[in-house]
Amino acid sequence: MKRLPIVSCLSAMLAVALASGRAQAAGETAGGPAALVAPRIGTGGPGHTFPGATVPFGMIQPSPDTAMPDFHHAYDWAGGYQYNDPTIMGFSHTHFSGAGHSDLGDVLLMPISGDVRMEPGDPAKPQSGYRSRFRHATEIEHPGYYAVTLDDYAIRAELTAGPRVGWHRYMFPADKPAHVLLDLRPSIYDYPGKVLWTRLRVRADGTVTGCRTTRGWAPGRTLCFAMRFSRPTTARMLYNRETNVPYRGFRGPGNAPTDQTVQNGRAVEAVFDFGKLNGPLEVKVAISPVSETNAIANLDAEGQGWDFDARHADATAAWNRALSVIEASGTPDQQTQFYTALYHAMLAPTLSMDTNGDYRGPDQEIHKARGFGFYSTWSTWDVYRAQQPLMALLRPDMSTQFVRSLIAAQQASPVGVLPVWSYQGLETWCMTGYHAVPIIADAYLAGVRGFDADAALNAMVASATSPVYGDLTDYIKLGYVPIDKEAEAGSKTLEYAYDDWSLARMARAMGKTHIAEEFEKRAGNWRNEWDPKTGFLRARLSTGAFHTPFDPTAAAYGSDYTEGNAWQYLWFVPQDVPGLIATIGGNATFIAKLDELFDTKVDPAQFKNVEDISGLIGWYAHGNEPSHHIAYLYDYAGAPWKTQQRLRQIMESQYNAHPDGLAGNDDLGQTSAWYLFTALGFYPVAPGSNDYTIGRPFLSKAVIHLPHGRTFTMTADHLDADHPYVASVTLNGKPQDLLHLRHADILKGGALHFVMQAQPKQP
Amino acid sequence: MKRLPIVSCLSAMLAVALASGRAQAAGETAGGPAALVAPRIGTGGPGHTFPGATVPFGMIQPSPDTAMPDFHHAYDWAGGYQYNDPTIMGFSHTHFSGAGHSDLGDVLLMPISGDVRMEPGDPAKPQSGYRSRFRHATEIEHPGYYAVTLDDYAIRAELTAGPRVGWHRYMFPADKPAHVLLDLRPSIYDYPGKVLWTRLRVRADGTVTGCRTTRGWAPGRTLCFAMRFSRPTTARMLYNRETNVPYRGFRGPGNAPTDQTVQNGRAVEAVFDFGKLNGPLEVKVAISPVSETNAIANLDAEGQGWDFDARHADATAAWNRALSVIEASGTPDQQTQFYTALYHAMLAPTLSMDTNGDYRGPDQEIHKARGFGFYSTWSTWDVYRAQQPLMALLRPDMSTQFVRSLIAAQQASPVGVLPVWSYQGLETWCMTGYHAVPIIADAYLAGVRGFDADAALNAMVASATSPVYGDLTDYIKLGYVPIDKEAEAGSKTLEYAYDDWSLARMARAMGKTHIAEEFEKRAGNWRNEWDPKTGFLRARLSTGAFHTPFDPTAAAYGSDYTEGNAWQYLWFVPQDVPGLIATIGGNATFIAKLDELFDTKVDPAQFKNVEDISGLIGWYAHGNEPSHHIAYLYDYAGAPWKTQQRLRQIMESQYNAHPDGLAGNDDLGQTSAWYLFTALGFYPVAPGSNDYTIGRPFLSKAVIHLPHGRTFTMTADHLDADHPYVASVTLNGKPQDLLHLRHADILKGGALHFVMQAQPKQP
Repeated sequence: MKRLPIVSCLSAMLAVALASGRAQAAGETAGGPAALVAPRIGTGGPGHTFPGATVPFGMIQPSPDTAMPDFHHAYDWAGGYQYNDPTIMGFSHTHFSGAGHSDLGDVLLMPISGDVRMEPGDPAKPQSGYRSRFRHATEIEHPGYYAVTLDDYAIRAELTAGPRVGWHRYMFPADKPAHVLLDLRPSIYDYPGKVLWTRLRVRADGTVTGCRTTRGWAPGRTLCFAMRFSRPTTARMLYNRETNVPYRGFRGPGNAPTDQTVQNGRAVEAVFDFGKLNGPLEVKVAISPVSETNAIANLDAEGQGWDFDARHADATAAWNRALSVIEASGTPDQQTQFYTALYHAMLAPTLSMDTNGDYRGPDQEIHKARGFGFYSTWSTWDVYRAQQPLMALLRPDMSTQFVRSLIAAQQASPVGVLPVWSYQGLETWCMTGYHAVPIIADAYLAGVRGFDADAALNAMVASATSPVYGDLTDYIKLGYVPIDKEAEAGSKTLEYAYDDWSLARMARAMGKTHIAEEFEKRAGNWRNEWDPKTGFLRARLSTGAFHTPFDPTAAAYGSDYTEGNAWQYLWFVPQDVPGLIATIGGNATFIAKLDELFDTKVDPAQFKNVEDISGLIGWYAHGNEPSHHIAYLYDYAGAPWKTQQRLRQIMESQYNAHPDGLAGNDDLGQTSAWYLFTALGFYPVAPGSNDYTIGRPFLSKAVIHLPHGRTFTMTADHLDADHPYVASVTLNGKPQDLLHLRHADILKGGALHFVMQAQPKQP
Repeated sequence: MKRLPIVSCLSAMLAVALASGRAQAAGETAGGPAALVAPRIGTGGPGHTFPGATVPFGMIQPSPDTAMPDFHHAYDWAGGYQYNDPTIMGFSHTHFSGAGHSDLGDVLLMPISGDVRMEPGDPAKPQSGYRSRFRHATEIEHPGYYAVTLDDYAIRAELTAGPRVGWHRYMFPADKPAHVLLDLRPSIYDYPGKVLWTRLRVRADGTVTGCRTTRGWAPGRTLCFAMRFSRPTTARMLYNRETNVPYRGFRGPGNAPTDQTVQNGRAVEAVFDFGKLNGPLEVKVAISPVSETNAIANLDAEGQGWDFDARHADATAAWNRALSVIEASGTPDQQTQFYTALYHAMLAPTLSMDTNGDYRGPDQEIHKARGFGFYSTWSTWDVYRAQQPLMALLRPDMSTQFVRSLIAAQQASPVGVLPVWSYQGLETWCMTGYHAVPIIADAYLAGVRGFDADAALNAMVASATSPVYGDLTDYIKLGYVPIDKEAEAGSKTLEYAYDDWSLARMARAMGKTHIAEEFEKRAGNWRNEWDPKTGFLRARLSTGAFHTPFDPTAAAYGSDYTEGNAWQYLWFVPQDVPGLIATIGGNATFIAKLDELFDTKVDPAQFKNVEDISGLIGWYAHGNEPSHHIAYLYDYAGAPWKTQQRLRQIMESQYNAHPDGLAGNDDLGQTSAWYLFTALGFYPVAPGSNDYTIGRPFLSKAVIHLPHGRTFTMTADHLDADHPYVASVTLNGKPQDLLHLRHADILKGGALHFVMQAQPKQP
């Protein structure tokens, strides 16, 4: 991928903003950290981020979509947008940030000048459909704001967002009739038959409402919306473009070709006409996972009337507040990367509750949140590692909401378990483990409160003993998941054992000794996979024998490991790294094996069938989460300079300030959270431990604003390319252990000081 | 159709009830009018009634289904059951009574002993599927109770119902494993793809819940349910039997072949195993148009624990209370026919509201009923004629609820209009006119109160001026519906004019002079269709010219008239019969033309493409509603003896006490209501007029119990087959006008006395 200059785009953005007078309207933007964010990072390559507008943890993400291919070919378009694409097909309102599997792309709008085409058309054939060519030079992206010129229509389109409402402003050419097309057919990870039902309605006051039920990643998902235009329509047409419907019922609104009040079916589209316009058209769209009525209430709650600039200023202010939690010093590129990572780490979980407190649970029923906000979009397999621990540190207020949301979801679960990969309240069962358990445990042990800890522990135990997780029944019986009964048993055993350990930690802290003992025992189950002969953690059969044939380099979906091979999963004992080192054979063997991991020459084609494995350094795959803690493990074996060296290698090869600046899926902020912790000089190798492991900093200074007005400051002397190694670390002036930077010490406030040097500091 | 002896079946029923000791349990049954009802009437031929269990205006109708064919071939199975069928495929929980188009058949249960087959199988091939042969001799039907023996399984199955809960009791053979199959795939008026989505869940306490969304008569209809068994299951299997699903998402409960907790998809089935049983298994099923949560609440509200006999006694008591509104004397067959008609006239509108007041509106959104019960199942084109006027007379308390429900539906309508043909809150747009208007007007003028009359009038005016009704726009402009713009314009003009008249009547009574004047003018629009040349009311083109070619005998769906020809619609001016007589040419011409209507020799094959037109006497078609008032029109032309003669002709040829005892669809009680009024000696020719037209009685005595403890008694002297003509009629001893038996006079209580004679009483 050709890297394009983000920084110059940011300058262009500021220039445009100043020229249009919007910098004034956006008020707090000037000088705030939001201006440093480049949402374009990760929109190219495997990052899967989206460039559009949203607010921190917001429910709605209006963003341009360049393509929504069939799910067989959709991986690159998981965020709806791929940087190298030549056209935009429209602006839909729901997007995941950096997911490795996807859905959404709901309520697609496309402003059109002149003739209206009803199909998106072929990107390779300009004007074959309603999609439009665009140039990156016309794009402006900053947190809560996106703009682009749709060249085929000469339309300037801007987007901003509130928590539940997306705001559009379209400037049409004055000499052509203006239209807005609403296409309720396509969605991300599409396929024929995915839309189960759609209803659409234009109310007497002009409000357009509807709901669509799809059969995607979360089967049977219904999303409703309410939309208003700032100008009256001159005409409208509502279509159901289905063919071959055996039974259409009786003629009436929605089934009469001439009625333009309601429409329903499985291929609903609408065109709203505005005639020739001399000024901008604004559109506001609220969504609700519950009902049209709630969508209207959401729309009403976030701003009557029409003031796109004010809403843009609100969004910018929200981001400046959120991003101000850390003051980071560094080069311009470092600041861009750091604040973009912080931005990306604050996009999920997303609000999934209407203004009246209604939310949809995993049972598909409507529930009322009392005293908390219900958040969903849980990529737990990813975010338990660093993104959620980061929020527990920076935003314990949000962490409380997240934990309460997890408990609420468990209580509404048809099978009584915590979320795995869920969004809009619904479960997808994607990925392995019960990693909501370490999310809660880590938050609790990090001092996050404001939730019912007993209910939380109940939910955790219910999950950690439920047969719905891949053969947990045999795991409990045998101490490992047998590969003859359950695919990916090798990694599942390891993940369960870690999750169990985190549960035990919380039970122990709560004084629940019996629970703690039971799960402390299970935490050692990783040992059941150790094969001294090959030196790997391996899947066993029900008989106890190891699964053969065994190739430690082999990886495939449904193999012995989840999105990985034996090399990558050898390190997955975060709860007991010393035990792992001893098992492998002591520090020297451990370090040698780590070096082999990073230094083996590996052909990336090796993983061509496992698209999530990317960002290779040897077998190390930074583009996927199982590797994320590995570089820090040298510390445990007494070779911190090797951790420091690998971190530099990763930071330099796997991140940059360009559209392809993420070497793998951002995975709802996990890959960005890794960057943030690492840049600050420490990382949560074992969430739930209360400890961070120290690596090396990449910023000269960072000030974390903690609750209660405290600050925790990281400073680094002599930090530059020529001084990549840590000479010394002190906490409040005292020498600091590299393996136990205690969360509690950070919370007290204080100063972590690094002195860097040119050479490795060997013992 | 071979007529089977109902009376002997009733005797058998009483014998069985006594033998089993259930007469004791059913308590109030003995001697009550419920015992006189034969729900089997209308289950054969075109009646389309169902034989199952329900309570007055109840939400749920558990009933046996003999077949659910593709909608192309489903007309005969609109009630799910056809008397001549040899097998029962199961017991579903929702049925229309006597509809001419259909849907429903939700939540189909089949008890099975021994091996389980998963497909219903071919009725012609015994044991090719799960359906079972049965014999009518084993059937017992009475209001609120149904029983049958499933011969292929040797299972005795009984059904009863509360307002929202259906109760089953199955006696399995002791030597074979007992199962209950739940098939969520089929429905009445089926077709491939009709089921849009189904979810199914077994909760920790064993409660089975789910929702199904179908694309049938009311598109996108969701019905939820909650079910409990009186015994624990020994095993269960939940299936989604879809094939060719392009995308199935990730493995998890509902997508794992081994999980038996949740299931979803478009072809969901489940089998519940109970092992060998020595006593009965009871099953209770609640439905909700809103949610599983509400279905559970409905289930809880109608009886904890297990006491089928008590629930049966409750249902019987409810029917005895409801049917006691009239004490009818007559022959056993007359009593059976009369009370069965009264039973059929009290099956709709049906409750469509959960115990917490939630209901689904025509906007598909959830609303809360405050201070009233929300009722749906509105076949307005049919029931405005006699069934709703009968309820306004007998059950003004229910009429209040019905009118409030109509207003609530209008207020929630996406297009702001009153129901046309709606059920479970949703609109189908089936049939013509805005006949909720005369329903409300008639109730208001009949003295029904307890609703907001201004809101009602607003709803009526909104409907009578809405462009959503077939070309009402041109009707308002031109004074008729032009046939070049709108099919069936000939009858639509006539229906609109009548509806307009009823609206004017209510407006006039409310002192809304401007509205009254506007609609009084529109009430005369029938005159715009008069063609003096042919002597018929004919459709015109927009130009004003009559539509040609014209054949007064022609009838086809989408022709000039709705389910009728020019002969049948010539009489549709109920609001101004004197005006029609004058227009046709005076009494003699009018009578001659009426005679021609009845006496012409007509080949029923004439209407083979319009299946609703049945019950022919000449061109007169008692099997369809447009004819229902016609026999009474002789009265207006000074020939009451001809009315009396035709009524006898109709009563004797169109009704009997056998399964084929209805000559046409019962249409949610309209055909039965005609029978009831006619048997009592009077009929509402023009609902909204406040007047009944007197025909002749068919009962020797009937006492109507009115509100406030008053009674209105009809007696007939010399009533027998040899005295079919009225000699005299007196009201409270005074001679009574045949055209103006005032509703108000009935409400006062009193005595209507007929003296019959052998010969016509000519002037």
